[in-house]
Amino acid sequence: MPSHLLTQHACKELDAVDPLAPFRSQFELPEHIIYLDGNSLGALPKATAPRISQVVQQEWGRDLISSWNKHGWWQAQQRVGRKISRIIGAADDEVLVADSTSINLFKVVAAALDLHPGKIIVSERANFPTDLYMLEGLIRHLGRGHQLRLVDSSEELRTAIDGDVAVVVLTHVSYRTGRMLHMAAITAHAQARGAMVVWDLAHSAGAMPLQLSSAGVDFAVGCGYKFLNGGPGAPAFLYVAKRLQDRVQQPLSGWFGHARPFAFEPSFDAAPGIQRFQCGTPPIISLAALEVGVDLMLGVPLAHVREKSVALGCLFMRLVDLECFEWGFQLASPGDPAERGSQICFTHPEGYSIIQALIRLGVVGDFRAPDILRFGFAPLYVRHVDVWDAVQKLKLVMQERLWDRAEYRRSAVVT
Amino acid sequence: MPSHLLTQHACKELDAVDPLAPFRSQFELPEHIIYLDGNSLGALPKATAPRISQVVQQEWGRDLISSWNKHGWWQAQQRVGRKISRIIGAADDEVLVADSTSINLFKVVAAALDLHPGKIIVSERANFPTDLYMLEGLIRHLGRGHQLRLVDSSEELRTAIDGDVAVVVLTHVSYRTGRMLHMAAITAHAQARGAMVVWDLAHSAGAMPLQLSSAGVDFAVGCGYKFLNGGPGAPAFLYVAKRLQDRVQQPLSGWFGHARPFAFEPSFDAAPGIQRFQCGTPPIISLAALEVGVDLMLGVPLAHVREKSVALGCLFMRLVDLECFEWGFQLASPGDPAERGSQICFTHPEGYSIIQALIRLGVVGDFRAPDILRFGFAPLYVRHVDVWDAVQKLKLVMQERLWDRAEYRRSAVVT
Repeated sequence: MPSHLLTQHACKELDAVDPLAPFRSQFELPEHIIYLDGNSLGALPKATAPRISQVVQQEWGRDLISSWNKHGWWQAQQRVGRKISRIIGAADDEVLVADSTSINLFKVVAAALDLHPGKIIVSERANFPTDLYMLEGLIRHLGRGHQLRLVDSSEELRTAIDGDVAVVVLTHVSYRTGRMLHMAAITAHAQARGAMVVWDLAHSAGAMPLQLSSAGVDFAVGCGYKFLNGGPGAPAFLYVAKRLQDRVQQPLSGWFGHARPFAFEPSFDAAPGIQRFQCGTPPIISLAALEVGVDLMLGVPLAHVREKSVALGCLFMRLVDLECFEWGFQLASPGDPAERGSQICFTHPEGYSIIQALIRLGVVGDFRAPDILRFGFAPLYVRHVDVWDAVQKLKLVMQERLWDRAEYRRSAVVT
Repeated sequence: MPSHLLTQHACKELDAVDPLAPFRSQFELPEHIIYLDGNSLGALPKATAPRISQVVQQEWGRDLISSWNKHGWWQAQQRVGRKISRIIGAADDEVLVADSTSINLFKVVAAALDLHPGKIIVSERANFPTDLYMLEGLIRHLGRGHQLRLVDSSEELRTAIDGDVAVVVLTHVSYRTGRMLHMAAITAHAQARGAMVVWDLAHSAGAMPLQLSSAGVDFAVGCGYKFLNGGPGAPAFLYVAKRLQDRVQQPLSGWFGHARPFAFEPSFDAAPGIQRFQCGTPPIISLAALEVGVDLMLGVPLAHVREKSVALGCLFMRLVDLECFEWGFQLASPGDPAERGSQICFTHPEGYSIIQALIRLGVVGDFRAPDILRFGFAPLYVRHVDVWDAVQKLKLVMQERLWDRAEYRRSAVVT
């Protein structure tokens, strides 16, 4: 579309023909808010509150302990895992919901190191910090001389993966920049050198079609509370390729991972398949909220999600370039949509304060240290007109220097 | 009370003067059910559903990402931990809510082994299996020749704790028999031999006053979904003595345990104090349900809870003895109330079927392999008359052989 035709009206016309438009009405969205932070905490599906009320009042309150069988609590981790498998292109017995992303990363990397004699773990210095922290904790804990080899670029990554590497741990879409790695190519590259690969799908599951099985991925972990709209701190998921499941053990071997948990045997005997990656009793209420988000996503054509995600991102970039070029925003995301996920990031020295001023005007993005403004586009509920309006507010913040207030100083915000 | 005065009417009179009686109305209890399984899954407090609805609809739905600060999500694990500290007799910065009991056990035992050169971990063969499974996983994972020394009796326990022992891992109240160990004495005995002690409080927190600090306990873990009424799979808690906190590291070092989680630094720097035992993002909805249960418990005099728990247990034992002596129930719990927690267990060869028949009559206890009938007494909502009526139903099940039906065969039930 030529620039002079890029108007609010044109954006509304794009929304009118958007095949995903009907999904917006399935979310509770606060009025007067443009929510560009679904990559941090996804919005609330309308079906969630009634479902949670049912779990609390009927299942817990009325049926009490019998709900473990009667309402399928006992199978919930595998049931929701099977549903997620369809969203990430895995076989239905390759995915499990459990614990947090951090803990799942510990499990799968520990399992991988058990299979591989190598001592080197490759990751990116700019990986989401908890992934690096968990690797650090694992290495220290094992005390067997494993080393973390951190790289600073995709180019360095290729050469860093050599015959000494046991495991490569990468996040598919960067939390900071939205840069997306080539999952299949890197997996093949690493496996050709004998390494195993663990992918963190926190910023990609639910935002685009994924093909874990056909990419031959060994292990993956992911987050339930971003594009899967599972609620704050929703239980996370993990994927283990079928061919590896019965060959591996993971150290967090709790009773939910036992072959016969109710035999109450004194020794651990790992359940067959993916179930051995379960540990303790899962938080059923939060898990039920996740299931609602996942169910909603199962009805969505992921190719359309990706298409709209790219369209919204390109529109946002272009409008910022047209409307805000004079204020020195530097694009921190890849310009090529094939190289990025569902967010657009800019750097600006006043990034933190600009985000605060924008939030005050009803446009919710977020800030990542030291200077990144981060805008996520959740295609199920973000419209083209929201992108238009958000950029107009950004322009207003800059034109009127609304960011330049003492109250807009640093405090904590969660990814 | 002489046996001939033990009547339903007398039980009702005891309820009329019970100082805890008013708490029963704070729970949603299904009609026509006598729930003697609060030691497995606590009942639903009436305040929980409205609070969860608020968290889902207002905090998540309306305030979205800003709730991490605005509604104190970020501090929730420490806030609820502080509240639990008052229930277990700890200082307010010694307790944290996090993950599951299994995972917390892994953290604290790993931390203890880090401090101690010994290779022996002492526990009981009859400990709750997930505790043993987690120790097994930890030992295998560490690969440093640690050994599990399992004992079969309290007497054996004393002699098993010698100068080679690094850590003693015990459950305060046995899930199978309700037998209660002497926390302070065993802690002192172990510490005098140079060992550290980890207590699992799953079946004691909320059921009796505890004094972790004055007993000098090193580490403890506990469960949110039994006597704390936190909901199915509620997040668990852990305790680390203040004197140890800054000396230990735990391997599950996720971003919530970092000193500056939002600086997004590539290296882990453990937060001071108990916060370093946090790992990933906690399940906020389930955590909010736990907080309601804990808040309710904070208003309860724990000495009365213990007193009533003992009274209900003694009443139950006595009535079973009077009414059901001919059917060969063997007491599996200690006869002395000072030696047991808040449950009474019997063995019977037809235990599984008897429990199923009782459940059909509205008396919910549970079964533990191979032959244990388990009855829990949650003093906040179980009345003396419930105990009377439950034993009458048990008598009916035995007199009429109601248990002797093909449909009452084995299936899974969760502790």
